[in-house]
Amino acid sequence: MTPLDKLVQFLRIPSVSSDPAHAADVRRAAEWVAAELAVLPRVELIEAPGRHPLVYAESLTAPGQPTLLLYGHYDVQPPDPLELWHSPPFEPVIRDNNIYARGACDDKGQTLILLTAVRQLIERDGHLPCNVKVLIEGEEESGGEHITSYVPAHAPELAADAALICDTEMFAPGLPALCVGLRGIVYGEIHVQGPAQDLHSGVYGGVAPNPLMAAAEILTALKNRDGYITIPGFYDAVRAPSPEESRAWASLPFDEEHYRRTEVGASALTGEPGYSVFARTWARPTLEVHGIRGGFTGEGAKTVIPSTAVAKVSFRLVPDQDPAIVVEQIRTAIAAATPRGVTAEFRLLHGAPAASVDPAHPLIAKAAAALTQAFGRETVYIRSGGSIPIVGLFREALGIPSILMGFGLPDDGLHSPNEKFHLPNFHQGIETVKTFLNSL
Amino acid sequence: MTPLDKLVQFLRIPSVSSDPAHAADVRRAAEWVAAELAVLPRVELIEAPGRHPLVYAESLTAPGQPTLLLYGHYDVQPPDPLELWHSPPFEPVIRDNNIYARGACDDKGQTLILLTAVRQLIERDGHLPCNVKVLIEGEEESGGEHITSYVPAHAPELAADAALICDTEMFAPGLPALCVGLRGIVYGEIHVQGPAQDLHSGVYGGVAPNPLMAAAEILTALKNRDGYITIPGFYDAVRAPSPEESRAWASLPFDEEHYRRTEVGASALTGEPGYSVFARTWARPTLEVHGIRGGFTGEGAKTVIPSTAVAKVSFRLVPDQDPAIVVEQIRTAIAAATPRGVTAEFRLLHGAPAASVDPAHPLIAKAAAALTQAFGRETVYIRSGGSIPIVGLFREALGIPSILMGFGLPDDGLHSPNEKFHLPNFHQGIETVKTFLNSL
Repeated sequence: MTPLDKLVQFLRIPSVSSDPAHAADVRRAAEWVAAELAVLPRVELIEAPGRHPLVYAESLTAPGQPTLLLYGHYDVQPPDPLELWHSPPFEPVIRDNNIYARGACDDKGQTLILLTAVRQLIERDGHLPCNVKVLIEGEEESGGEHITSYVPAHAPELAADAALICDTEMFAPGLPALCVGLRGIVYGEIHVQGPAQDLHSGVYGGVAPNPLMAAAEILTALKNRDGYITIPGFYDAVRAPSPEESRAWASLPFDEEHYRRTEVGASALTGEPGYSVFARTWARPTLEVHGIRGGFTGEGAKTVIPSTAVAKVSFRLVPDQDPAIVVEQIRTAIAAATPRGVTAEFRLLHGAPAASVDPAHPLIAKAAAALTQAFGRETVYIRSGGSIPIVGLFREALGIPSILMGFGLPDDGLHSPNEKFHLPNFHQGIETVKTFLNSL
Repeated sequence: MTPLDKLVQFLRIPSVSSDPAHAADVRRAAEWVAAELAVLPRVELIEAPGRHPLVYAESLTAPGQPTLLLYGHYDVQPPDPLELWHSPPFEPVIRDNNIYARGACDDKGQTLILLTAVRQLIERDGHLPCNVKVLIEGEEESGGEHITSYVPAHAPELAADAALICDTEMFAPGLPALCVGLRGIVYGEIHVQGPAQDLHSGVYGGVAPNPLMAAAEILTALKNRDGYITIPGFYDAVRAPSPEESRAWASLPFDEEHYRRTEVGASALTGEPGYSVFARTWARPTLEVHGIRGGFTGEGAKTVIPSTAVAKVSFRLVPDQDPAIVVEQIRTAIAAATPRGVTAEFRLLHGAPAASVDPAHPLIAKAAAALTQAFGRETVYIRSGGSIPIVGLFREALGIPSILMGFGLPDDGLHSPNEKFHLPNFHQGIETVKTFLNSL
């Protein structure tokens, strides 16, 4: 079976970790990963009640050599809205050197780069040139509670010199990048309770509080039209990027108009005036609303004032914002913004601080060299606006930096319909990881 | 079969007119009504392509006597949210003299009052004491397009002295009421288009417009927290109630605190300061949001910036607001409120002006007398905050007033889970209508 055959097989498993209906698929994906890692001396599924399994494997046959902790995730985002997919999300198809499926890039394709590099080195040499510990989780898209409790509790067994994570992007096609900064996140729900039951908007419109309107009022009280978050104290801890980093970003090849048109596809970019696109997506915090539940959203006209509404929101955090403090600020601001006649409560789903890596770390230099060798272009140092909470966890619990060696492309459509992975990047990624491991 | 047996049978038909999946049920309800009316000399289903049938029947055997146009509707609101029903919405159950089912009060129970009164008079006397034309529609809860085009096109055949409509409420248990005013409505959807596809909120949060947030910004720009609609010109045509009417409302038996607690069930009533509950629900226009579609509202955490969002909204109108002018005002205000990076469009689903009836009309006086006789208390004149577009249509197309003789109770839960109808009102309603027809 070629690595591509394996990728197709992996992508066929609908391992949507946030959906209890897919629990069996998530387990199947874990077992698939464990089978791939069976070439290593030790591999096991780590179980916890009510949680998706962790896959752990190790090869500690290179005494005196560095130890890398390889991390990836086998779970995926929900595929909705299904109607926008050109081919079914769990039936991978290849078009123009890209493979289309949910999880193609995020993160099955990139996780399989790690698994394949390790397997090929062992199959060729009988052993690995360094020590590796492999930890692949199944809850990255749904809060990651299992790994969050497992890692601190097993810090000695997981001891390593650095983590190697393939879950980020190249800056542009053919331009390799190491990601040295990630935003953190606070994801939660604003639950608004109004009337005791759904009411007729004719009979009660004018006197009954409307939780949907209240949700809109609360949301617009938290962020203004310039994208500035108006929660008191929210920006107090925000650390600006260093002048060197800002200068490096300014010299990246970037066509804002092309980005607006081809990646965002909107009539204008939004966000805080006076900040560049890189600053707004990498170095400034955000508030986004992901969905508003309540009332009637089907076809036709139902004239209901709903009893409740729920707004699903997330805040992206930057260094040095503390998620726990931010949650308190959010709660205070929601309380202040709640209109008369309703109650509103913020329910935290998960939180993680921003993470950053020192570009001067010696393993980062070797990773950059491996990327440069594989792609034939100088590696650039970028950040990502997304959140990989595990990076902060590895830093805190294990005291190690994470090497974020990403092979995604900016238009891969993570979390969107028609997510894809560029197959040349898949293959060059495998070569890069092998080169990197050999260089240690 | 008793009238109650028939009501149970009628309520078992899930005739949800706004849901295409229930089209066959809607037709079944129409046929059921036609069968009930088969005691009249003429009865037929009136079909139109893509529309639910009208049921028409007539008895013109009382020359020299007045002609009444009896109106009701056999369709119902969708039953969601299903999980809040104590018994299935289309399996009627009787508890404490109330029958619980979707449509129990609105409007199958009240429509059946008309059908039963006519049937009992014919079965007793062999003929009716006045002329009646019966027009029962199946799209009252979904825009009423069929009847809206049918009535003006068949004005001569539908000629009558007044319409008799049982689709409103008594003011309180045991206190009969004639409704002499209804609010109009403009129901539509605000369609917001942002990015070309759903985007990852980590990668693009900070630069991508978010249609859900844009919808919240537009909604809060249209109405302030005091319930005042900030659309320019919106109140220009609003006619205040007459001093007599305001005085009569002030003398109605009404405990605002009890109403807040038992009917609205919220911690506070809302709406424009300086206006009474009656003024706010009967004589002032409103804006309500009924649902916001877009993004992800399931369990768990999906970090999506959706490509589109749709807010379902309605405006209740009062005399003398013109729906066509209001729609233009809404469109202008939405254009002005639309934030950068998105487009927003108001799609009208349906509209109808407010309607009012002259309490001095002689047929109104006879209707009040029939009510007073059946319930043993003086009939009061009230308005309703809801919209019965047919009243305006009968006024415009046929030049006749509508007698709004309602037997619902304020806590009947129209459009809500656990809708009910108070069975004594069902039986007294039948007696009232018979008394009224005999009095003409």
